[in-house]
Amino acid sequence: MRTLAGTLRKENVDQEVILKGWVQKRRDLGEIIFIDLRDRSGVVQIVCNAEENKETHAIGDSIRSEYVIEVKGKVVKRDRDTINPKIATGEIDVVVSDIKVLNEAKTPPFSLTDEMDVSEDVRLKYRYLDLRREVMQETFKLRHKATQSVREFLNEEAFLEMETPMLTKSTPEGARDYLVPSRVHEGYFYALPQSPQLFKQLLMVAGFEKYYQFARCFRDEDLRADRQPEFTQIDIETSFMSMDDILEMTERMMKKVMKEVKELDITTPFPRMPYDEAMERYGSDKPDVRFAMELVTLSEVVKESGFKVFRQAMEDGGKVSGLNLKGKADHYSRKDLDNMTDFAKIYGAKGLAWLKVEEAELIGPIAKFFSEQEQAQFRQLLDANAGDILFFVADKKQVVYDTLGALRLKLAKDHNLIDESKFEFLWITDWPLLEFDEEAGRYHAAHHPFTMPFESDFDKLETNPGEVRAQAYDIVLNGYELGGGSLRIYQREMQNQMFEKLGFTKAEAEAQFGFLLDALEFGAPPHGGIALGFDRFIMLLAGRTNLRDTILFPKTASASDPMTDAPNAVDIKQLNELHLRLK
Amino acid sequence: MRTLAGTLRKENVDQEVILKGWVQKRRDLGEIIFIDLRDRSGVVQIVCNAEENKETHAIGDSIRSEYVIEVKGKVVKRDRDTINPKIATGEIDVVVSDIKVLNEAKTPPFSLTDEMDVSEDVRLKYRYLDLRREVMQETFKLRHKATQSVREFLNEEAFLEMETPMLTKSTPEGARDYLVPSRVHEGYFYALPQSPQLFKQLLMVAGFEKYYQFARCFRDEDLRADRQPEFTQIDIETSFMSMDDILEMTERMMKKVMKEVKELDITTPFPRMPYDEAMERYGSDKPDVRFAMELVTLSEVVKESGFKVFRQAMEDGGKVSGLNLKGKADHYSRKDLDNMTDFAKIYGAKGLAWLKVEEAELIGPIAKFFSEQEQAQFRQLLDANAGDILFFVADKKQVVYDTLGALRLKLAKDHNLIDESKFEFLWITDWPLLEFDEEAGRYHAAHHPFTMPFESDFDKLETNPGEVRAQAYDIVLNGYELGGGSLRIYQREMQNQMFEKLGFTKAEAEAQFGFLLDALEFGAPPHGGIALGFDRFIMLLAGRTNLRDTILFPKTASASDPMTDAPNAVDIKQLNELHLRLK
Repeated sequence: MRTLAGTLRKENVDQEVILKGWVQKRRDLGEIIFIDLRDRSGVVQIVCNAEENKETHAIGDSIRSEYVIEVKGKVVKRDRDTINPKIATGEIDVVVSDIKVLNEAKTPPFSLTDEMDVSEDVRLKYRYLDLRREVMQETFKLRHKATQSVREFLNEEAFLEMETPMLTKSTPEGARDYLVPSRVHEGYFYALPQSPQLFKQLLMVAGFEKYYQFARCFRDEDLRADRQPEFTQIDIETSFMSMDDILEMTERMMKKVMKEVKELDITTPFPRMPYDEAMERYGSDKPDVRFAMELVTLSEVVKESGFKVFRQAMEDGGKVSGLNLKGKADHYSRKDLDNMTDFAKIYGAKGLAWLKVEEAELIGPIAKFFSEQEQAQFRQLLDANAGDILFFVADKKQVVYDTLGALRLKLAKDHNLIDESKFEFLWITDWPLLEFDEEAGRYHAAHHPFTMPFESDFDKLETNPGEVRAQAYDIVLNGYELGGGSLRIYQREMQNQMFEKLGFTKAEAEAQFGFLLDALEFGAPPHGGIALGFDRFIMLLAGRTNLRDTILFPKTASASDPMTDAPNAVDIKQLNELHLRLK
Repeated sequence: MRTLAGTLRKENVDQEVILKGWVQKRRDLGEIIFIDLRDRSGVVQIVCNAEENKETHAIGDSIRSEYVIEVKGKVVKRDRDTINPKIATGEIDVVVSDIKVLNEAKTPPFSLTDEMDVSEDVRLKYRYLDLRREVMQETFKLRHKATQSVREFLNEEAFLEMETPMLTKSTPEGARDYLVPSRVHEGYFYALPQSPQLFKQLLMVAGFEKYYQFARCFRDEDLRADRQPEFTQIDIETSFMSMDDILEMTERMMKKVMKEVKELDITTPFPRMPYDEAMERYGSDKPDVRFAMELVTLSEVVKESGFKVFRQAMEDGGKVSGLNLKGKADHYSRKDLDNMTDFAKIYGAKGLAWLKVEEAELIGPIAKFFSEQEQAQFRQLLDANAGDILFFVADKKQVVYDTLGALRLKLAKDHNLIDESKFEFLWITDWPLLEFDEEAGRYHAAHHPFTMPFESDFDKLETNPGEVRAQAYDIVLNGYELGGGSLRIYQREMQNQMFEKLGFTKAEAEAQFGFLLDALEFGAPPHGGIALGFDRFIMLLAGRTNLRDTILFPKTASASDPMTDAPNAVDIKQLNELHLRLK
């Protein structure tokens, strides 16, 4: 019977054990060879002593890092001065009586330690080695644990885990589909699902009432650091539950996961913040509320100000907001502040105004434009004290939010204002249902076309569609959008109306979503749900910053896999069978 | 707070409850309307009484089957003579004080009962209605239960649930891949995985030691009744475990699932039968051992027989086997037996010989060719008694097995010899590693090219490849192949040798499987695993005969979905982005 290396303790002294695993490290002291043997449970030090056993010493002499070995030996207590309190097995050694090489290993192309310094492409090419590193092993153990914790919760809530298809129908709405050509149906294609949205709604029509799935989803979009072509979401849908029910249940689920995975007691209910308020206070629909430094609307203060830039912004229908970086005025030279204008321009702002706060006055090139009263109001509204520095943006609403929202995050990072041990959950509610697309000259769905408006806004659908609020909610964690959901439209008439508002003709709506529209006519229950980005959740739980570190075999930014070389060229025969030609 | 309809009992009498669900049935007795209200938990009868409440009665009068309703009411005891002992809620009614229609329903296109008679295409088009039927609801509840039972077992065995990619590399080996064109890499394609085989092996190289996944797999093959283009397998891989370890663990897993899902205590260990023995005794590599009627080899008896057909088969290197259908000689007229020859021909046999057994003699056109001694041996070897009928096939080995194997199943079905309540598990072991492909003039892998031969057969790889046995095993349940697995090759040299035997050039092996070959050089542990067809397992557990009844949204035999109309035509713009043209 094999024993796991990492489980050995001083209680096991004198036991004979069989170990199997990898050579983590080998120190050759001549007559004595020390080997750190690693398996999935951890590491133990084994000893080949020439004096005691020439044969095992000779084999110990021949083995190298990452060899796979099988060892028979006896657990012995270490001398007091060689005890290593940093590792769990540090009080004992295993003295080898028999050793066998199960497989040899070439020298790995990079060090398999947590601090190795090698390009990500090389790590991905040798992913099976990269994954041996402790930090990676721990991440995927955590991922497993979080998966089971979520499942356990949902199973106890009487949800059924259900599998929806991967070979589905392509619809032009939403992101770009990955297509799968059909061999049987010439010229036709399946699409890989961007989410199981319609299937989970149909499962509600089918009367299952409580569905969940760890769903693989696909989007053929240009990748950013926190996007992958395929990703996993915790996909949940329920019937007959209110928005409050769904939020409360999700909170209980998060509470359980945080307790079981991070041993953290988080507070529920999570704060709920309407979308408009989040934008106004944080310049973001996924605010990081682990720190304050909120945006403050100053429009009222400056609407008749002597500073033309501010006044003009107001006159153009825009707004002026500011934020206060407390106690850091000294950190910023004139040149630093000039550079920050470039940062502001990324977000479309024409400039970034600032004022340093001193005991008696506000200092800076724009100070002179503001009356004493205005300056006093700045101080009061921004809670400004000597040593603080204030930043202002005056522009269209969205530009003000984007710029100050990004600045807020940048300053927090620059000055280390974020407590990384904190997990701050938050709901964003009262989303706009529709967004006007200037280019296309029509509305599109802010979430998706199946989102239910608030009943009190039904009337506005005709009169003022831009003001209709959706029964939608996003869950935000530490400034990341963890997921979102909504109540869904469950009556055919309203779904028709929605498609009409989105510019679909009847025929288009029928062709693309006819099966859903049909289903809504055969007794569809009120339903709603939520989907949580599981890769991102794991990233935050594991304290990683790169989404690829939470996926076993991720793709690069160009959606390729350096290990297998996917995607690759295929046989002309395969293309012929699919009735395709390359252009 | 909502109460679930199916949970109400006489203990709840006098309670006020709120119910939400579907109208299953409605009986209008004028002043009184009875409605069966259904939700996920079951059905309860609700009563709208015009005498007590005119308003609710009017609404009750307006509603129809499959309407979604919300009801407030009081639980009351039924009169003794109206108690329905067949349903769990049959002792009570709910007298309605308030009723609200949440959604209307058109008349469904078919009856939502278990006995409805409608084409499968219509069922699939309205799958969301088909799934409302009780038998379907029960199947997917069972599927959920089995899923969690398997997970619980593997979690307790310290396995990690891990997700492997869906966008992988196409390799020409095996079945036909589903391809996914790349937008970024012009002319290149991903493939959807036929199984996570290589990824799970790489996870072993990565040191995880214990992996599992409910893996979606894809094969673009022409479909039979028990095949689907996408299917789910329980995918398991372990390091450092022997074949015995893996089989024993799988048995414990099955024992737990059978207990928890079917409340059955099954006996472990399962019988193990070498491949050759299974073919000889059952004419099948997935024998249904719920009944006997075994094949018996008669080659020795007939090798010098006066019956030329038998003797000739022997001289051509073939064999003669027979089976005994006990006590059914009377069921077969001469014409019936002539017809059975047609059945035999499906499997390549030239004919099907038979003898009826009487007290004194064997009866039939071929009886005269056999000596008394031969006839006595037939009787003895086939355990023949008066009233039995014996069938014989003389041909090439494989034809004998295929024909008698199929006949055995057919006769068992025709005469109802199978106890459908039984679950008989069985291991088939000692598989051939390689099969000679006459057409291609080379060997191909009987399982896959990563299967480990028995150590004692290593030498034969060079001298007699066809005789090499694999450390592979199939698990068979009630005549279905439930799954299979093997120990894998973990040393590069042997994997090279295997590819060579399979006719790969070095360059081809490198181009297709270079990443695996590389991985085997960096300290790959001995490893192996198993994969179980989960859809088929559920089919057997649920007592269904159609695989499509175990999948929520399955495809038809032409791999299409009548509900969504997938696959479908896509925009020329989408094809352009993928650098593709239709032929």
